Parts: sequence; structure tokens; C-alpha cells
Amino acid sequence: MSESRDIIYIGKKPLMSYVTSALIQLANQPKISIKARGLSIGHAVDVAQIIARKTENAGYAVGNIKIGSEQMQSQDGRSRNVSTIEIEVKRTNS
Amino acid sequence: MSESRDIIYIGKKPLMSYVTSALIQLANQPKISIKARGLSIGHAVDVAQIIARKTENAGYAVGNIKIGSEQMQSQDGRSRNVSTIEIEVKRTNS
Repeated sequence: MSESRDIIYIGKKPLMSYVTSALIQLANQPKISIKARGLSIGHAVDVAQIIARKTENAGYAVGNIKIGSEQMQSQDGRSRNVSTIEIEVKRTNS
Repeated sequence: MSESRDIIYIGKKPLMSYVTSALIQLANQPKISIKARGLSIGHAVDVAQIIARKTENAGYAVGNIKIGSEQMQSQDGRSRNVSTIEIEVKRTNS
């Protein structure tokens, strides 16, 4: 079973484009995960909150939230830790 | 019962100053909450991860995580929504 279509990775695109992608995926499956790392973590929270707020009655809600760290190689060859977040968004009636 | 001493608000100071404050509070009580909003959300995750990673054996761990929104008045008088996060950090042996 492939899980990859259930995940939205937050990057540098405008917020609403992630909201749209997330809503399209939520039309097809009961839950998705919104993932981000580093400076995009705040945007992942924004996307989850926009979906939860705009569909309050419809409706989707925020589920489990996990945080973690990943080791990344920086350009000078040293490795450093980057924080990550994973926010579950799911149908409230499922 | 006052809860206010259990909360660390993340602002614009260097990360490690929040890590220190959090560790001091955790020496006195079994759990604290790290709170942030807007652009500081990523830093709240960083602080929680640094504490969890550096005290892995000691040890503290990340507990519940909540996200939300707050209405704020911007300088032009319009109100807009700002995302918030609240990360619980607690003793693993409690």
C-alpha cells in the first residue's frame, strides 16, 4: 500500500496552493499528513488551520501532531539537525 | 493554582536562552508548555527538540502538541488570523 499520496510536503509555494492540494486529496481519502521542516514548519500549521477553519461544518479537523529532527548535510559539509513537523488532517465524521 | 510559570513563550531571543529557561523550569515541575505563534512556531519546535535530544537518557520527552489560531489586530486596523502552537515537554519517568 503506497502512503505517498497521503502526504503534502510544504515548501516555498503560496500557502493557498497547498490548501488546494490538501483539499483535493481529502476528497479522495479520509486523512492526509502535512509535513514540513525548518522554516516551513509555521506554514504547515497555517495550512492545517486554514483547512480546519474553513471546513468547520463540512468538516475536517486536525488529528495527531508529531515533531522530530532530521540530520542534514549543510553546504560546508557539516551535518546539522533540522526540526520537522507532521500534522494529520482527517474527516471529522470518519 | 497559577499555571503561568509552566509556560515558556518563544520570541526573538536566541534559541538557547529558551532552552535554558525551559530546563530550569523542568527542574522544578514535571511538565511545561512551550508556546509560540506565527513565525516563531519553528523555533518552538527547535527548542522542544533540543531539550528532548540532549536529555534523551536524563530524560525529558515531548508530550501533547496542540495547534490553533488567534485573531490579531494588524497595524492597519484589520484583523487577521495567526497560527499558534503549544508543545508539552515532560519528565519521561513521571
